[in-house]
Order: sequence, then C-alpha cells, then structure tokens
Amino acid sequence: MKKPYRGSSRPRAALSSDCERTDEKLCLFRIPGLPEIRKGEDLAKSIVAAARKAGLPFAAGDVLVVAQKIVSKAEGLLVSLGNVTPSAKAQALAAQLKKDPRAIELVLRESRRILRSDRVLIAETHHGFVCANAGVDHSNVPGDDLVTLLPRDPDGSAEKLAAALRKITGKRIAVIITDTFGRPWRLGLTNVAIGASGLPVLVDLRGTRDRDGKPLTATVLAVADELAAAAGLLMGKAEGTPAVLIRGYRFKPASEKAAGIVRPASEDLFR
Amino acid sequence: MKKPYRGSSRPRAALSSDCERTDEKLCLFRIPGLPEIRKGEDLAKSIVAAARKAGLPFAAGDVLVVAQKIVSKAEGLLVSLGNVTPSAKAQALAAQLKKDPRAIELVLRESRRILRSDRVLIAETHHGFVCANAGVDHSNVPGDDLVTLLPRDPDGSAEKLAAALRKITGKRIAVIITDTFGRPWRLGLTNVAIGASGLPVLVDLRGTRDRDGKPLTATVLAVADELAAAAGLLMGKAEGTPAVLIRGYRFKPASEKAAGIVRPASEDLFR
Repeated sequence: MKKPYRGSSRPRAALSSDCERTDEKLCLFRIPGLPEIRKGEDLAKSIVAAARKAGLPFAAGDVLVVAQKIVSKAEGLLVSLGNVTPSAKAQALAAQLKKDPRAIELVLRESRRILRSDRVLIAETHHGFVCANAGVDHSNVPGDDLVTLLPRDPDGSAEKLAAALRKITGKRIAVIITDTFGRPWRLGLTNVAIGASGLPVLVDLRGTRDRDGKPLTATVLAVADELAAAAGLLMGKAEGTPAVLIRGYRFKPASEKAAGIVRPASEDLFR
Repeated sequence: MKKPYRGSSRPRAALSSDCERTDEKLCLFRIPGLPEIRKGEDLAKSIVAAARKAGLPFAAGDVLVVAQKIVSKAEGLLVSLGNVTPSAKAQALAAQLKKDPRAIELVLRESRRILRSDRVLIAETHHGFVCANAGVDHSNVPGDDLVTLLPRDPDGSAEKLAAALRKITGKRIAVIITDTFGRPWRLGLTNVAIGASGLPVLVDLRGTRDRDGKPLTATVLAVADELAAAAGLLMGKAEGTPAVLIRGYRFKPASEKAAGIVRPASEDLFR
C-alpha cells in the first residue's frame, strides 16, 4: 500500500484538476469531513466547505453524487419509531416477518404496493421505485429509535441542491442523489440514482451506429445509475462518506429527472 | 470544453500514476487503440501494448474491465446466422416476436430457461445470468450475418486473462469481464460483471458497524457490478472502447467468481 493521499506532498488541487471531459479519463473523489447532517442543514454550503477544505474546488461540469441519507436528514425525514402506531395489517406482517411492527407500518405508509413479503418487504414506493422496505432505513442514523424515509421529491431535492451549488460557486454542477437498491437475479446492492439534476439520466444510442457501422437497435444506457454505482465504490456504507465528486464525465447539460428511469408499469415484464 | 487530454503537454504516465489506493480517489482510463479482435487473439498482449502506447502502464492493484464482446471474439464465439437451422419452437417464437428465427434458435440454445417472451426474450443462460436474448448480440460485430455468444466460462476467461497479464507485466491485475444487462423496474442497461478474477465481487458489510456504531444488517455491496458500471461510463457502446483501466480502487486480492453474484434460485423472489 502506498502512502495515503492525505499525506502526499503534492497539492490536492493539482491532483483534482487533471481530469478533463474528454471521454479518456474519469476521476472520482470522496468529499471527506462532512458533519452529521441535521434538519434544516444547508447541504450545499456544507458540501462546498468540505470540498474546499479537502482541496477539491468544484469545476463546471462536475457531477456531485450525494447519498439519500443526508438529503433525508437535511429535509427532516427522520421518524421516531416511538411515535408510530402500527395498524393491524402492519402487526400481522411484522409477526410473519419477525420485524418491528412500527417499522413495517412506516414501510406500508411509504408504499404504493407491496410486491413481495416473503423474507423482506419488496415495495413500490409512491415515487415508483421498487426496493426493500420502501427505503425506510435505520443505518447511519443516530439512536436506536430513529429511521429515515426517502426524500418526498428526490428530483426536486437534486434540483434545489444544484441551484444552491451554482449560487455559491458560480458553476453549473450536476447532482445525483443515490440510494442502494437490491436486484432480482443478482446478489448484493448497487447504488442507483433516485434524484438527478442537470444531466441526462438515460443516453439513447438507438439510431447511432456501432464501430462496424450497423445501427444500434436496443442500447439505452442508464448513465445516471452508472454514475451512482461508480460513486458507491467510494461511499462505503460503513465508512459514512455521503458525498463524491465525479470529474471528467462528458455530457450535455440536460434537465432530465431520475424519475424517468422508472420503467412504466405498462412496459414492465416483472410486476 | 477544455483542450482534449490527447493534446495535453503533460506526460500521460504522470497523469495515470497519481491515483493511489486510499479510498480517497478513483481513476478510470479508457484504453484506446485496440485492433478489431479476431479468434485466437492474445488479448493480454494486445491490451498491454495498447495501454503502454497510451501512456498507461499497468500497476499492481489495477482493475482491468473488458467488454464481453472482445473476449467472445478472441474465443471464437462468433456464429454465422447462415449456418443456423431454426427449430419449430424457434420459428414459432420468431413469428410472434417478429425476429429472425435463426437468432431466436441461438437464444434458445444459449438458455436454460425463458422467463419472458412478450416483446423481447428474457432468458436465463446456462451460466445462470438473466438477460435479454441470453447474450446473443449482433452489435459491434463485423458483417450482417454474425452474432456473438457469451463466453462459455467468463470467470475462467477472466482468470486466464489475469494470469497472462501477470506473465507479461509481472503485476497482479484484477480482471472483470462486463456486459450490459437490462433490469426490471428500471429503464436502460447498465454494465455488470459476468466474469471476474483477483478481487472480491461482493463485499459483505454485515457485522460491521455504521458511523453511529449500530451493526449493519443487510448491506452486501455488489462491488464488481459497481466497478463494471463505472467502466461502462467510458466504454460507450457506439464508440467501441472495450477496455478500461481502474486505478485507486482499494481491495484485498481474492479469488471470488462473478458466478457468485448470481442469486440462487432458492433465494430469488422474482423467478
């Protein structure tokens, strides 16, 4: 293992500025040193301050990926289980799954529909996301009694954060809000984009040609999810690094929403 | 847009060597200039030569992500549709889906099971992967008549490539073979790992504690898929860059296989 980056004698800013948007190279940086986020926290201000302190000033065209958890905390979406009265349905499900009926009650409230309730609850949230427990989560939350809910409007949250970042830095920074979701057929969680602002979330290559000149017929890439997944490699849930800066990703500014990644029920073969 | 990286006066090697394995920073580099890969091609040799030419010498701990397509080509897994005689079942399915019956025949041969045949064929391959058309693909293949099949043993292919890279470079390089798969519930494809060598594919954080000291109960990250997704951002299907070098990812060398990411049918709620 080489000497850690922190102890490098090279200036951090120089390291962070060598990534140009050329499709040749992509750089990802953890933004360390964020405080525990509380309700009402000015996330943009805190993130810009932490990035500056770490020698990572934002540049136009950067993509900031933040964990859902800090957005939810800043938006006050913490619920104390002590304040939740479980319904009869929640109590029955909780008995079946051997879970806390108050947590199950919150999952039901956050859900449009429950897809599976075998070992875990796989729910479709009111946003349309399909994930375990409708995003109700007790990790990285202080105290035993508190859980977080997903942001009510993650695309709106991303847009507000991007606007605030622009106000402070004068630069257009794209924002992705990410959470870790499980998948059918494959084990493990990956980070996906639940909110986005300022960049394309899906890149449609249909109509373009491959290197042999043949038209590509079914190649829409979920780039916002790939950006979120890349950032997830540096977030490491246990280490609690909820903000990652991606530099060098080439894209045309766009006002697409991560909600657009949700597959319409009519086109979904697995509901 | 800044001056492209190619035209930079800074030496490329310096740019590529500033990424240390500290969890602080991650760098991804396209490896440009690979030739059209033919059957029997020594992939390791070609990739090392291309990387050197681009000023990107491999370092110990690097992760090389290669597209399935070039592995299949090197392994001779190109099939001419002209040589395929469709079965009655393939003809019936092809009529229903308005596809080439010969291509459908190949999908059936590559499949253990067909999960859906509504608009596309969602198949479970003999490896256990669930994907469209069992990986039978006509993009980035020369000629109208040729399609590629997935490698027979992608983990074995990754292991062989890693061994060959080590022989040439003297360095331990982890290898991921990636393909783009669709997902239920979410639009767009993302790159996933279908073969791996030298690194953990799933990182189990269960038993570790979050930043608030609470044990994490359900946090297994599919890091090989996240590495593949990150590389996918630079691969851009149409541009045909089938090799990406990831530097700075911290991991303990391991001999896990990407086959281990396939969720056992007994634990799968969506089969």
